[in-house]
Amino acid sequence: MTTGATTADERLLERRQRFLGPAYSLFYRQPVHLVRGEGAWLFDAAGLRYLDCYNNVASVGHCHPRVVAALTRQAATLNTHTRYLHEHVVDYAERLAATLPEPLGVCMFVCTGTEANDLALRIARAVTGNHGVIVTEDAYHGNSTAVFELSTEEYPAAERPAYLEAVAAPCLYRGPCRDSAEPGPAYAGRVTAAVAALAARGQRPALFVTDNAFSSNGVLTAPPGYLREAYGAVRAAGGLAVADEVQSGLCRLGDHWWGFQDSGVVPDIVTMGKPLGDGHPLAAVVTTPDIATAFARRYGYFNTFGGNPVSAAVGLAVLDVIEDEGLLARVGETGRYLHAGLRQLADRYEVIGDVRGKGLFFGVELVRDRASREADPGAAAAIREHLRRHGVLLGTTGPFDNVLKIRPPLVFGREHADVLLAALQEALQNARQAVARS
Amino acid sequence: MTTGATTADERLLERRQRFLGPAYSLFYRQPVHLVRGEGAWLFDAAGLRYLDCYNNVASVGHCHPRVVAALTRQAATLNTHTRYLHEHVVDYAERLAATLPEPLGVCMFVCTGTEANDLALRIARAVTGNHGVIVTEDAYHGNSTAVFELSTEEYPAAERPAYLEAVAAPCLYRGPCRDSAEPGPAYAGRVTAAVAALAARGQRPALFVTDNAFSSNGVLTAPPGYLREAYGAVRAAGGLAVADEVQSGLCRLGDHWWGFQDSGVVPDIVTMGKPLGDGHPLAAVVTTPDIATAFARRYGYFNTFGGNPVSAAVGLAVLDVIEDEGLLARVGETGRYLHAGLRQLADRYEVIGDVRGKGLFFGVELVRDRASREADPGAAAAIREHLRRHGVLLGTTGPFDNVLKIRPPLVFGREHADVLLAALQEALQNARQAVARS
Repeated sequence: MTTGATTADERLLERRQRFLGPAYSLFYRQPVHLVRGEGAWLFDAAGLRYLDCYNNVASVGHCHPRVVAALTRQAATLNTHTRYLHEHVVDYAERLAATLPEPLGVCMFVCTGTEANDLALRIARAVTGNHGVIVTEDAYHGNSTAVFELSTEEYPAAERPAYLEAVAAPCLYRGPCRDSAEPGPAYAGRVTAAVAALAARGQRPALFVTDNAFSSNGVLTAPPGYLREAYGAVRAAGGLAVADEVQSGLCRLGDHWWGFQDSGVVPDIVTMGKPLGDGHPLAAVVTTPDIATAFARRYGYFNTFGGNPVSAAVGLAVLDVIEDEGLLARVGETGRYLHAGLRQLADRYEVIGDVRGKGLFFGVELVRDRASREADPGAAAAIREHLRRHGVLLGTTGPFDNVLKIRPPLVFGREHADVLLAALQEALQNARQAVARS
Repeated sequence: MTTGATTADERLLERRQRFLGPAYSLFYRQPVHLVRGEGAWLFDAAGLRYLDCYNNVASVGHCHPRVVAALTRQAATLNTHTRYLHEHVVDYAERLAATLPEPLGVCMFVCTGTEANDLALRIARAVTGNHGVIVTEDAYHGNSTAVFELSTEEYPAAERPAYLEAVAAPCLYRGPCRDSAEPGPAYAGRVTAAVAALAARGQRPALFVTDNAFSSNGVLTAPPGYLREAYGAVRAAGGLAVADEVQSGLCRLGDHWWGFQDSGVVPDIVTMGKPLGDGHPLAAVVTTPDIATAFARRYGYFNTFGGNPVSAAVGLAVLDVIEDEGLLARVGETGRYLHAGLRQLADRYEVIGDVRGKGLFFGVELVRDRASREADPGAAAAIREHLRRHGVLLGTTGPFDNVLKIRPPLVFGREHADVLLAALQEALQNARQAVARS
């Protein structure tokens, strides 16, 4: 299967460039013009089919009929905001709270993961009275003025504000503590050092935040003890522990509803975004009653669209689908199957330096040489583009952009994993032959 | 018509308090539990009907069937994001650009007015290289960490950051230049002074931003020359002129699509929010090709949900309805009719100190005494609550919370205005009798 740009697409691209401007970008050298989605499949304007191995936003599958029905029913009935009483937002908050460990149980609704992380920052600063923030290197948490500053992958380290400290992400393949006998505590020691570095500048931490899939770090799993010890260090300095679950949450990692649960910790604030609404702009901050009360002593909160009856109905429908279709267990099973398949490919293809992740979130790191671990972003791009031409969509990520990012809708099953693994093997074979020819 | 709290509502309130926490608030002493909306009408759980004179979010009317149909159709077909090619977002950007004067024509999509103003701040700082901001006193522009700081009504003046200068809003009823022969240029002089005050602190302005309905200032209309001279002062100092049209835009003021057009100016950046999606979370930043290009030289931009195919389909449907139902002209006509009715009430009731606004956005300022102009927030609250008990919803606003805020859906017609005016007269009569008895 191959695709070429049509004249219609070229015209659309020209108009897009004019009316959306140059700050927007598109995936792929030859952009994909999608017109329809269903489950784990997407279809382009020429009628070609693509297996979606990338989009976590369509969490319970593209255009899930129960989600569409809930959206339609509520949009045709009432759509106001949280300053009037309505059952849906309360029902949704209660259901969401029930997925989380105590004492997490107070929900505040926003529209995007950026807004969720921005509100978490406001809450942490208001409640602790501190201003400092500790994040990982190469982090991405969103695009508002404040949250962009926490997104260390987005701008040069020299431009970091004085309140910010960045620590090495807990990578076992490349990071500074990868050879430690206890990498979790060793990496957590970087957080302790960050607290001290802030103190040396007269700052105290308001919060420490991690994306618990470490997506922009190339997809990592927190090593044992990491979050527990890091949370301890930050709390000892008066700061809060924030779990950014925009990527790792809502059953994504296959064993629990939320990524931090893999580490046996309970954060002070959890932020949630992309997958909550199966495409609908719905996001949330969940915290403890004590923190919510302390925040409310200083500030009120209102978000016009956040938690409106339609958004809440959609959120409820997504939870219903996850439960009724048994998606948490299914993600675990498919994830184990897919992981085994990826490991087998790693046994056959030297270009695969590392396979990381769990559930339905994997990073496959490509290297020029296994001994030197030199990143091979060219191979990653070639495989991504080859797969696109052959009907499989995935992305690349990581500080060197050499990690294949596999993060499909949660309805991805074994039958889809087989398609991905076969296509990936062909792409790896193709890449090996290209190297042999060169 | 009167309503009382039911046991079911009390249980819902308790659960709401527990799962949403204390930072959330509700309108009215006796909250309204809404279950259905249609056009300009809302219905509560007891089946009582309310005329909606407050909600601009449901711009083309609650649950407009064409908007619901567009939402449903696209949500059932595809909902991805702007990193794949799709017609809808380009069509919507083109249609939106066509409502604006040249050279405004490049659109960037977000989900909320807060996100729009936050992005405008990022763009202005990136493009000008300046950091300062000039806003009005008692302004509200949103709730992100950065935009909250621009929202001077939200926190004590003593806590303002050094980059911020606040100027008196151009009020002709209360403000410092109200008795000037030329209040527009006189108030604009405050902006010139703010530029100088920033310079004295080593700051230069990145932007000057006004809500062009001056909603949180008690609903004002910019006097002639104000925006033109203020924009000139800011641009002379290297800053950009930003029009926050979240409140005043999308035909709200009855003569033009956007509020700034009443002043014959063209801003550098326009931000849009609440009404764009008739309830769906859709917002935008529109700027010039030059500014978009300068921003893109430093940063890319992506918002997961912003401008997705469903949001864009909804935005297009709202524009279709506005055009096909002739809402701009209708807003102008109904607005003139409603204004005349409010003026007649002001002739009869001394408590009305001022009637301001145009189109379908009015502020009715209540005072204890017309000579002293002493604010009467108690009367405003009493009238708001009386109207709620009698099936009419409106709000209160302004620095003293003594201004009745009338801002109904754009489909509000003469028949609705008659209902509002009759109910308001009864409420005013009732308030007069209460004063006479006390």
